Amino acid sequence: MQRRSEKHLCEGMTLKINGRRVWERIEELGRIGATEEGGVSRLAFSQEDRQATELVIEWMQAAGLQVRRDAAGNVFGRRPGEEAGPLVMTGSHLDSVASGGRFDGVLGVILALECLQVLEDNGCKTRLPIEMAVFAGEEGSRFPGCLLGSMAVTGLLPPDYPYQVRDAQGILLADALRQAGLEPERFGEAKRRGEDIKVFLEAHIEQASVLEQAGKPVGIVSAIAGPHQYHVTIRGRSGHAGATPMQGRADPMVAAAQVIQKVEELALTSKAGTRGTVGFLQAFPGGHNVIPAQVDFTIDWRGISEDERDAIAQETLDYLAQICKERGLTWTAEVTAHTAPVQIQPQVLEVLQTTAQRLGLDYHVLPSWAAHDAMIMSQICPVGMIFVRSQGGLSHCPEEFSTLEDITQGGDLLLHALLALAEPLV
Amino acid sequence: MQRRSEKHLCEGMTLKINGRRVWERIEELGRIGATEEGGVSRLAFSQEDRQATELVIEWMQAAGLQVRRDAAGNVFGRRPGEEAGPLVMTGSHLDSVASGGRFDGVLGVILALECLQVLEDNGCKTRLPIEMAVFAGEEGSRFPGCLLGSMAVTGLLPPDYPYQVRDAQGILLADALRQAGLEPERFGEAKRRGEDIKVFLEAHIEQASVLEQAGKPVGIVSAIAGPHQYHVTIRGRSGHAGATPMQGRADPMVAAAQVIQKVEELALTSKAGTRGTVGFLQAFPGGHNVIPAQVDFTIDWRGISEDERDAIAQETLDYLAQICKERGLTWTAEVTAHTAPVQIQPQVLEVLQTTAQRLGLDYHVLPSWAAHDAMIMSQICPVGMIFVRSQGGLSHCPEEFSTLEDITQGGDLLLHALLALAEPLV
Repeated sequence: MQRRSEKHLCEGMTLKINGRRVWERIEELGRIGATEEGGVSRLAFSQEDRQATELVIEWMQAAGLQVRRDAAGNVFGRRPGEEAGPLVMTGSHLDSVASGGRFDGVLGVILALECLQVLEDNGCKTRLPIEMAVFAGEEGSRFPGCLLGSMAVTGLLPPDYPYQVRDAQGILLADALRQAGLEPERFGEAKRRGEDIKVFLEAHIEQASVLEQAGKPVGIVSAIAGPHQYHVTIRGRSGHAGATPMQGRADPMVAAAQVIQKVEELALTSKAGTRGTVGFLQAFPGGHNVIPAQVDFTIDWRGISEDERDAIAQETLDYLAQICKERGLTWTAEVTAHTAPVQIQPQVLEVLQTTAQRLGLDYHVLPSWAAHDAMIMSQICPVGMIFVRSQGGLSHCPEEFSTLEDITQGGDLLLHALLALAEPLV
Repeated sequence: MQRRSEKHLCEGMTLKINGRRVWERIEELGRIGATEEGGVSRLAFSQEDRQATELVIEWMQAAGLQVRRDAAGNVFGRRPGEEAGPLVMTGSHLDSVASGGRFDGVLGVILALECLQVLEDNGCKTRLPIEMAVFAGEEGSRFPGCLLGSMAVTGLLPPDYPYQVRDAQGILLADALRQAGLEPERFGEAKRRGEDIKVFLEAHIEQASVLEQAGKPVGIVSAIAGPHQYHVTIRGRSGHAGATPMQGRADPMVAAAQVIQKVEELALTSKAGTRGTVGFLQAFPGGHNVIPAQVDFTIDWRGISEDERDAIAQETLDYLAQICKERGLTWTAEVTAHTAPVQIQPQVLEVLQTTAQRLGLDYHVLPSWAAHDAMIMSQICPVGMIFVRSQGGLSHCPEEFSTLEDITQGGDLLLHALLALAEPLV
């Protein structure tokens, strides 16, 4: 009888996550690295980041998971299946941007843990193992480059990467890893084989207001926009702002201004909705009465269509080259990120949509314009993403917020999608 | 006989400055605060600035001048005339920009000293006193605002100004003055009466290449462009560079880019040759993947025509207001400098031109587009300026250079113009 009831519970839509427990854990994590404004600062491999990870490991162990940590700082918690593999993986990250919010990343980690705990508490057995993942250094707010942990898992970083990059204080990533109790010389061992992973699912806050505007609590991601980022340097000829005639100036600031407008113009007229942003600019020497000798700035492109995104990015560089030639300037553009957009595989989309329908959830299918660990994991296995509505679309700030009700719906969707993918045992 | 010979020497064009001595003194000052690149860094009231000033005071005393220092750090060296006043003043400054050149300011100080020394050595008596001035803090590279010393002399600064401003290290100007052995509480006493000064002459390197292009060693300044400077802040709505749709963004960076282009466009089409420069820009938070919440930048206008300059500056603000309204942004523009251009008085121009002609100098009449202490002094007395050709037009950099020959011609012009204005005694 007990056996039958379990089967019924695991196979049907009766199982529910404990939203209250999820909420309390998000709140508890929010106290680690809490800022005065109500947000959190948990930069990758900082003391706060390590403390949050330790707490989650305790919870994972209490939930009966087999916990291990790789040399990149990623933490995995496995719930064995009847068969050895391939496994179904789910998770996200715990690090934050400086003065970020309490939900970004944390939500996907705590929902993953909750799903595994519910399965354990209800004695649900699955054919395939389910593993939760806590990826390290997703935000890239401390060391250059984001998505560090998932890139290590997918083998996108060289084994000596920890010896190549430093944070703003000059601390080598290898030393930060060692301080976190890891072995940077084994960084390359974090790489995993794609054939061992059937699918990776990530729950995340939306970080935009599409769901809010559509009046939907949860979203199912159809595609993940890929970032294509540049660090541009334009060099000209400095001079006294008063003494130098306008004619014959080689002013990199005006050229940068033209490029910034071009970025907006191309993004606004993009057919595939490619987005373009210049978020950083610095002039050297930067005096109010000196024509800059050099201007550095970044360009961030995001596209669902890789072809269009890369064509627009190239058009911008061509424009940059043209105006620099006209103005007697020189330029360089270093590619700092170039990732292909991800189209979610129809089979995964199908599982998520069918599950949502069976749960009676009011969902919306939409692309993710932000990058996520799932984008990187797609390099080695099929991925899927569940979005939870963000209040006001705000993210990476203390005001970041999602309601307990929306989170619970997203969690139930994750739970039953994981069950379906890991195949509950009859 | 001796008396007659002196009279002849002082009245005619026979007196010459000692160019070699001038050159050696410029070289000796260039060793104080010398940079590896061959320039100097002598920020206002720094140890290097104080050391350079002490050295010049020694030379002034050796030249028989009556030396005094005011509470703003300006140094004056007087050579009495037969009458008590009004006096003829000449000078410039010794402080430099960070990593500046060896001639800017120094030239005008050393040529002033040289002229007085030549008069003293040749026993030339004048009806009016001649005073040389070493103005403090002209460059504004350490404390906010430039032309500090001459502004104190002309009464353009409040008596408690030293208690209002700090350098980048947070050091109060009053404390820097005290460290230089001055009494900041007496700052207001630096103010002088315009009726006591018949005329102020300043020799300076051109800092541009008009003379070089015209093939002239020296220039006589017809007007000094006045700066009109703003610190502009545009505030928008930050957001994730990927997650935030292009439509509905409130991105202050793109608005700043539009304004930067407008500044160039208005300057290039200006009928009176008004110049416009954006030399500084900073985005907050400044992340490569974050739409800025705020962008700060400066606008520097220089015009010979005050009406046109101010009209163009206003047109730019109107444009800023319009695009901010369209884009849902807010803005402020703080005026950080607003000085009327100076038209050199015909009588002073006449003396300089007649003297140059009598000396057989190949000169060029041109405006000064850079601001100088003479611009400030014009608030209380007539002023004149002599330019010496700058190699390559370079200034505020280690490559700043003028030849001994050009400097000697400029010095002879200053000497005989001073004599003419102070009226040599027959």
